[in-house]
Amino acid sequence: MLLETIERANDIKKIKREDLSALAQEIREFLIQKISVTGGHLGSNLGAVELTMALHLSLNLPEDKIVWDVGHQSYTHKILTGRKNGFESLRQFHGLSGFPKRKESECDVFDTGHSSTSISAGLGLVKARDITGRKNIVVSVIGDGSLTGGMAYEALNNASKLETNFIIILNDNNMSISENVGGVSKYLNNIRTAAGYLDFKKGIYNALQGTRRGDSMISRLRRAKSSFKQLVIPGMLFEDMGITYLGPVDGHDIGAMVSVIHDAKRVEGPVMIHVLTQKGKGYEPAERHPARFHGAEPFDIETGIPSHPRTEANYTDIFSTVMCKLGQRDEKIVAITAAMPDGTGLKRFRNMYPERFFDVGIAEEHAVTFAAGLAAGGMKPIVAVYSSFLQRAYDQILHDVCIQNLPVVFAIDRAGLVGSDGETHQGIFDFTYLSGIPNMHICAPKNKWELSDMLKYAVGLGCPIAVRYPRGTAYTGLSEYRAPVEFGRAEWIYEEEKIALFAVGSMVKTAEKVREVLKEKGHGVSLINARFVKPIDREAVKKACGNHGLIVTMEENVSCGGYGEKVLEYMNESGYKNGFLNISIPDAYVEHGNVELLKQEIGIDAESVVNRICEALKER
Amino acid sequence: MLLETIERANDIKKIKREDLSALAQEIREFLIQKISVTGGHLGSNLGAVELTMALHLSLNLPEDKIVWDVGHQSYTHKILTGRKNGFESLRQFHGLSGFPKRKESECDVFDTGHSSTSISAGLGLVKARDITGRKNIVVSVIGDGSLTGGMAYEALNNASKLETNFIIILNDNNMSISENVGGVSKYLNNIRTAAGYLDFKKGIYNALQGTRRGDSMISRLRRAKSSFKQLVIPGMLFEDMGITYLGPVDGHDIGAMVSVIHDAKRVEGPVMIHVLTQKGKGYEPAERHPARFHGAEPFDIETGIPSHPRTEANYTDIFSTVMCKLGQRDEKIVAITAAMPDGTGLKRFRNMYPERFFDVGIAEEHAVTFAAGLAAGGMKPIVAVYSSFLQRAYDQILHDVCIQNLPVVFAIDRAGLVGSDGETHQGIFDFTYLSGIPNMHICAPKNKWELSDMLKYAVGLGCPIAVRYPRGTAYTGLSEYRAPVEFGRAEWIYEEEKIALFAVGSMVKTAEKVREVLKEKGHGVSLINARFVKPIDREAVKKACGNHGLIVTMEENVSCGGYGEKVLEYMNESGYKNGFLNISIPDAYVEHGNVELLKQEIGIDAESVVNRICEALKER
Repeated sequence: MLLETIERANDIKKIKREDLSALAQEIREFLIQKISVTGGHLGSNLGAVELTMALHLSLNLPEDKIVWDVGHQSYTHKILTGRKNGFESLRQFHGLSGFPKRKESECDVFDTGHSSTSISAGLGLVKARDITGRKNIVVSVIGDGSLTGGMAYEALNNASKLETNFIIILNDNNMSISENVGGVSKYLNNIRTAAGYLDFKKGIYNALQGTRRGDSMISRLRRAKSSFKQLVIPGMLFEDMGITYLGPVDGHDIGAMVSVIHDAKRVEGPVMIHVLTQKGKGYEPAERHPARFHGAEPFDIETGIPSHPRTEANYTDIFSTVMCKLGQRDEKIVAITAAMPDGTGLKRFRNMYPERFFDVGIAEEHAVTFAAGLAAGGMKPIVAVYSSFLQRAYDQILHDVCIQNLPVVFAIDRAGLVGSDGETHQGIFDFTYLSGIPNMHICAPKNKWELSDMLKYAVGLGCPIAVRYPRGTAYTGLSEYRAPVEFGRAEWIYEEEKIALFAVGSMVKTAEKVREVLKEKGHGVSLINARFVKPIDREAVKKACGNHGLIVTMEENVSCGGYGEKVLEYMNESGYKNGFLNISIPDAYVEHGNVELLKQEIGIDAESVVNRICEALKER
Repeated sequence: MLLETIERANDIKKIKREDLSALAQEIREFLIQKISVTGGHLGSNLGAVELTMALHLSLNLPEDKIVWDVGHQSYTHKILTGRKNGFESLRQFHGLSGFPKRKESECDVFDTGHSSTSISAGLGLVKARDITGRKNIVVSVIGDGSLTGGMAYEALNNASKLETNFIIILNDNNMSISENVGGVSKYLNNIRTAAGYLDFKKGIYNALQGTRRGDSMISRLRRAKSSFKQLVIPGMLFEDMGITYLGPVDGHDIGAMVSVIHDAKRVEGPVMIHVLTQKGKGYEPAERHPARFHGAEPFDIETGIPSHPRTEANYTDIFSTVMCKLGQRDEKIVAITAAMPDGTGLKRFRNMYPERFFDVGIAEEHAVTFAAGLAAGGMKPIVAVYSSFLQRAYDQILHDVCIQNLPVVFAIDRAGLVGSDGETHQGIFDFTYLSGIPNMHICAPKNKWELSDMLKYAVGLGCPIAVRYPRGTAYTGLSEYRAPVEFGRAEWIYEEEKIALFAVGSMVKTAEKVREVLKEKGHGVSLINARFVKPIDREAVKKACGNHGLIVTMEENVSCGGYGEKVLEYMNESGYKNGFLNISIPDAYVEHGNVELLKQEIGIDAESVVNRICEALKER
């Protein structure tokens, strides 16, 4: 096993050239085997094996720096920097992260998770290098999907001024998580086609290299008239911006990439290497179903079928079904996703109403203002998005949707703890950032039927509203509680005296368990499903304060700006001096791991909540 | 006076063609005269007079839609849509807004204020039109400065797929508020130069028109080989993205623009008209000093000199001075601005340390992640930015700076109420969105010396921190209180019993007045300068709770997620049952107007606070 000889950074340089493709094969098998057990990002990692090897062969880590955009293609990098044993515990609590982490290795230079940040971060590292007079190489590796994010363009616009070396690798697999969209995608496609048409099998750059030994000819070409250049050098869009373009090059040909990186290192300025890769490369099920194998659950290697197939509907499925119904009922319903037709469950809506479905690419800012434009034009837009990605569009919600009080519905999936993706993906800030915005409304369902009811309610409301629900299986308990959704009204589920549990969304289920235990201990416990986080139901709080010594709020969001603080503020304003306990997420990032485990760790599981309530009762 | 005949939309169409330039001249004089009295955006409006006239001549408002990017060029549009009488009260409380407002006119189709939103919003209006089968024209007018914002690019990327008409007007004055930066700017410059070189005075498009009557030749050209196209048609960058490019055209030639808009309306797809304008056109002082006349205070028309020259330093001046000192003391200090070297006060730093100064263009997202990259590379970056614009980078602060706990300092100017710019620019959300982020720290100075002390403290802290200060004159009171800044520690200014005022930043001055009045009424009043909003000084609150019946917090931020809620939460956790009063901004957008007036309106001026405290005392 060649892989056994790779124990730390730069060990790959000891592998004989003729053994490199065997090593690539071993890495692929290793990845498939490990991810089939733990789950994880498969397709993106299989696509980047040779590219990563070429980088490690060409660079000197940790002095040289690689910034991985999104970071879900960094597994081979982890293997090559001494972390292969960590893959047993990949994405598990206290185990190896699925993303680059500075804490994990000095070879991880910048943490990523969200898209389109790598060129900005890389440019920062370049400027720091230049100011301090260091000479290391900085490489940002960005996918063509991430290039639909505006931030990447802002960074390219700035990088273009650079007069020192900065290598940007465009890892082009013609995919985001799903298919790619937009003008740039079309443009890249033209380059790919042109390259094929001209019969330069390994890309135009290599063809030039074959004839003239590298960059002297290319630099002459670059000085030539644009008209000529356009014919010979693809990537004029980047060249127009002032960025040297090299490529396209075959992203599964290690030798070709080492050679082009070698040349790129000598460019005094920003240089983009356009690398063509295949998502899922080398594992047939992943090649055939790239979207499904983007973030995979554990699967059977032979067939590619999930080891634990889902038997119950998750919230995304419910959303998906409701959207189809809403689309049929009302022709003004339009749906928007930022590159997540699969993840958000909008695929069925897309298939039924293609003219009312918009995948805008990885572009949350645009998605939200585009939705605002649609609403201003009389439509009823629903933006389906993960909680942590909606953070990108905070200003657009505040500035473009809510000032004008436009009826945009935000269907916020993956809200609360998401588990194995960790810090960057936890959806635990949305109550905070949304609550502070005037005209915004927020609700969260306790179970699958309530999600359906709330979505229907939301599209009829006529002003900005967010419906927020968690990742995973939709709760089917409390099915008998299905009172109509009313503006700002909570739902009383159990009405007793002494302790009042005001639980939000996913925490209603936890609150049921908490209540059971407290009942066993002889306490009277009311359970109120908050339903609305903004506005809170003041009447319900007032009523509860009448005959409950202790008011408890429970939410899967940080405490700052959350539901609990609103309840407490109202209690203070109204002069209620009842005991108050705020169960929410502490002011710290929550790492990756099993959600149940994480809840215990941060004290919001049923057992912890019971203990905290019992303590609070003692103190009174 | 021709202007007298313009009383509502489309009245301009009654003006004889030969009188149009006289009307333009009248509009210019009107704008200069009015803005010289009220203040307002001068340069951008003078530059867009003819462009706006051409649009109104070519379109049929309100059926056709114009989205004004940023909106500070919309004054002529307001004049032409029946609002010229409003200019007496421009940007004053309950008066005419300085930005497009749907509330003001049915000809204002989308509110703007922040940059780079117009193409997204316009595309939304286009899609709404197409889905509902309407036939109106949609035009987005965007400046070349706004084109450095990534959102605009996300929108262009999406617009490129369009198969129906959508007109984007690139109002290119080669400026943001200050000079423009980056690759695209350089690219546009090349177009401008090429156009000149080829001696097509009114732009290549018009030259073509002269010979062949419009679009048939252009469409043939568009089908031609790229190499040829590149030579003949500028704007290939846009054409590459799939957007028809027309231009450049002289933005002060009404006839030429009417003609090109006429042709643009017939394009079935997205079409960009590249219009060259001059910022400040027709008013010599504004032509010479475009940055100074971007947002102008009242001025003398003859000389261009401000009518009420500043005699006292504002917070921006203090920041400017401190930055120069910091830059000299520590070579790791680097400064970043998003197109605001003047507004943020970084111009002097730029002149002294050009290699450590970065103007990234209107690109807050990139600015913050770039700063994170600099910090990861060992630098000490200071991001100088207005509070409301930093909203754009919420995710970048959360995801790129704070997860990695990188030492980025945010110098947040224009925090709190900003006055005449209104809803879109009020800096009243930063405590909320920043407080919810783990690892973030926030402080606010009471006066000019404390700003200096806090900035010096912040760059030494070694983790993310925001220093937040308001627009306008720096407070010089309480100069004798200058205890060293300590982590998370408040400053006791007056220590008495009964009422404790915990005031944040700008509210310390207000609290002094409140205290005076309450003292006169015979109350004992402590005054505590909060200094830190995150973390709050728990010891100070604890101490105050010992001998003050009423704890009052005062801040210029919305209550949700603000300082007051943190104090209340701590009091609740610790079981303090003292009275508590939260003075903060209510949950509603605050319109434009004089800041003192606005404070009265929302109940955070000294008199209102006194009244609210007296009421709270009664209730106890």
